[in-house]
Amino acid sequence: MVICFIGIGSNLGNREKNIEKAIAKLRKIKNIKIEKVSRLYRTRPEGYIRQNDFLNGAIRLQTNLEAGELLTHLKKIEKDLGRYETFRFGPRIIDLDILIYGNQRIKTKDLAIPHPRMYARDFVLTPLADVAPELFKHKIIRTISAMRAFIKLLRAENKTIGFVPTMGYLHQGHLSLVRAAKKDCDKVVVSIFVNPAQFGSKEDFRRYPRDLKRDEKLLKQIGVDAIFYPGVKAVYPKGYLTYVSVEKITERLCGKYRPGHFRGVATIVTKLFNIVQPDTAYFGQKDFQQARVIEKIISDLNIPLKVKVVPIVREPDGLAMSSRNVYLSPQERKDAVVLYRSLRNAEASVKRGERVVKVIIRNITKEIKKIAYARIDYVEMADTETLEKVDKINGEVVIALAVWFGKTRLIDNILVMAKPNCRLARLRSGGQAGIKW
Amino acid sequence: MVICFIGIGSNLGNREKNIEKAIAKLRKIKNIKIEKVSRLYRTRPEGYIRQNDFLNGAIRLQTNLEAGELLTHLKKIEKDLGRYETFRFGPRIIDLDILIYGNQRIKTKDLAIPHPRMYARDFVLTPLADVAPELFKHKIIRTISAMRAFIKLLRAENKTIGFVPTMGYLHQGHLSLVRAAKKDCDKVVVSIFVNPAQFGSKEDFRRYPRDLKRDEKLLKQIGVDAIFYPGVKAVYPKGYLTYVSVEKITERLCGKYRPGHFRGVATIVTKLFNIVQPDTAYFGQKDFQQARVIEKIISDLNIPLKVKVVPIVREPDGLAMSSRNVYLSPQERKDAVVLYRSLRNAEASVKRGERVVKVIIRNITKEIKKIAYARIDYVEMADTETLEKVDKINGEVVIALAVWFGKTRLIDNILVMAKPNCRLARLRSGGQAGIKW
Repeated sequence: MVICFIGIGSNLGNREKNIEKAIAKLRKIKNIKIEKVSRLYRTRPEGYIRQNDFLNGAIRLQTNLEAGELLTHLKKIEKDLGRYETFRFGPRIIDLDILIYGNQRIKTKDLAIPHPRMYARDFVLTPLADVAPELFKHKIIRTISAMRAFIKLLRAENKTIGFVPTMGYLHQGHLSLVRAAKKDCDKVVVSIFVNPAQFGSKEDFRRYPRDLKRDEKLLKQIGVDAIFYPGVKAVYPKGYLTYVSVEKITERLCGKYRPGHFRGVATIVTKLFNIVQPDTAYFGQKDFQQARVIEKIISDLNIPLKVKVVPIVREPDGLAMSSRNVYLSPQERKDAVVLYRSLRNAEASVKRGERVVKVIIRNITKEIKKIAYARIDYVEMADTETLEKVDKINGEVVIALAVWFGKTRLIDNILVMAKPNCRLARLRSGGQAGIKW
Repeated sequence: MVICFIGIGSNLGNREKNIEKAIAKLRKIKNIKIEKVSRLYRTRPEGYIRQNDFLNGAIRLQTNLEAGELLTHLKKIEKDLGRYETFRFGPRIIDLDILIYGNQRIKTKDLAIPHPRMYARDFVLTPLADVAPELFKHKIIRTISAMRAFIKLLRAENKTIGFVPTMGYLHQGHLSLVRAAKKDCDKVVVSIFVNPAQFGSKEDFRRYPRDLKRDEKLLKQIGVDAIFYPGVKAVYPKGYLTYVSVEKITERLCGKYRPGHFRGVATIVTKLFNIVQPDTAYFGQKDFQQARVIEKIISDLNIPLKVKVVPIVREPDGLAMSSRNVYLSPQERKDAVVLYRSLRNAEASVKRGERVVKVIIRNITKEIKKIAYARIDYVEMADTETLEKVDKINGEVVIALAVWFGKTRLIDNILVMAKPNCRLARLRSGGQAGIKW
């Protein structure tokens, strides 16, 4: 028998009734034993079509059906209840999905398990937590040796490990990394460590926002396996002397304005990689230069892991999510939208055929300077590999910027292609503003 | 049934006859099936007692006796043949040792398996190779990906891995590291890579001696599992940018005279550790500062492995073994003995109560300067942890030196204790000259 979780939802007709009927039909199937049904939760529908709220639930069952056989039963129930094919994100009488099937990973044309979008959807995770509390349990691990012991245990069970290193004060950007990790890996470890080595002496190490309780709550909603929360003295004990540094690509863009910053980043990630020994580590595209530096360390130092860089998550008005956004005054917060707007305008001008880098940069700069008090560190168009300034657009380039709003330094970037297929660039830089979770 | 290897030897009476009798008795034991007996090899006895040469052989057998039971039988045969207890390294009518018992590791009061000194003894290894050729087979692995694949295989079989990184042109110092690794670990990997990153632009990278065939032959005699022999371009591909550096302790002693050297060492060992992922890595005490730097990297960067530092191996006249010794002219080679002699004299003076660092250093310097053409880089007494110059001797200190003989730079060191128990210091710095293998 395999333990299996099913997502169930309805937003057409008598929603409670539809769900009830579907569950009754499920109970009648031989070889299925329903163990628990969650409460039903009311959720806004996805997409942009005006339609009723959904009711969503989750079912825990045991079965000795194969996943494919189970799917066939679910499809039949949907059909029997009168579901007709509409369009993506359309309203539906009943919706049944296999979320999790034992600890199997399946990826065929018809079936992907675990359900590939479940970790991005609170309307799935919330009812799932009712019937699968074990998936949402996590440990807070505060010492390096306990972390190693935990990893050893997972390795002994042949689990794959996804790792999301953070400085805490999590936002949807971080959570999108966790979701990506959950999709790929058996187990997910999130580290929370505000790394003194990557802050300059005049930077905001002391006032950097910290709130473990809040972070823990957010991670609990998605479900992670461990939160690694080491102390500064354990990470950098007395007499600490060793640093990892990357030449050239750390001297450009932010590197020019934050000397030593990337040495601190390179050192802490190398240390964390050695402690957690993940299969895959996840970084955000917002810190584009950081992601490049980390990819370089991993390939240069032969660190045995994969890196995935996950698109920028933005606020509905387009501002890239950042823990530092909390520093902004209401006026600064409003004005900061200029960053993404100017990048999008630049992207549009490239699409229209603009190829003169100077013009593109000048336009961005001009737009930002309309906010009289904004102070630009840099606006640059750079090669995505070497991070060197480009003077021609040829293939993919990054437009990156760093701008101060009062005492807060914000960064943002966008990838653009000077080729017809600009779609790629759009997708990788986070897509439209206002991604919904 | 377990496959088991026995060492057999005799240097009293009719040696062939004794060995023949012992084997006949062994054959009669129930539950033992002798599969093969090696040729007999004539060897000089160990120790300093005037006695006959030994005849040595090895036996391959299958048994379902426990190791302890087998040992009891061997002891009985020794006794039956008239062996009497003499002293360590004394002559003996017959000597029977269990060398290897399946893949078991046993360590009790009476029995240590594999035989703890077998890897240090050619008179054991040579006949063993006759009957256990599979133990002396090795792979030469030339690419990083093949190395990773090999390690993955070993890991899947739950083998422990010992790693000896070298620059090749192996001597008994390197081989002592291999022997230590064989004693501790299931599998042993030796890397041979002349690392350009640790040579200064005016140093001897190009002329550094290289001879894979010779190295392979030496390693084959002991038996290793893999020789990792990567190319420079695979280790430092085009666009390589990442370096590991250790502050302070790399700026002292040799660091002052070889800027960048330890950055190169730190980087290559970090890379090799990431590729080979050993349980334990072995380094020689001759490169005392290097060993300290590597220990520091491992603890600072949380690299999950142990380091063992193995005593200096010296030529019979006391010169520390080094691949660079081949550069020396016959005169230089003769004169270079002054290094160890002056260190030993310094040690003796400390034992006699000398505590004034200046005096000790001056005496060493004076002695070396008797070789008119020798050029001293440094002679220093330093803290064994921080490598800072000490001005008082308190506990354990290292006396280290680097001296040029013609175009060849030699280093040596000795650990001394300003406490009654100087024995420790003597042992750790390699013991008497003329260690025999």
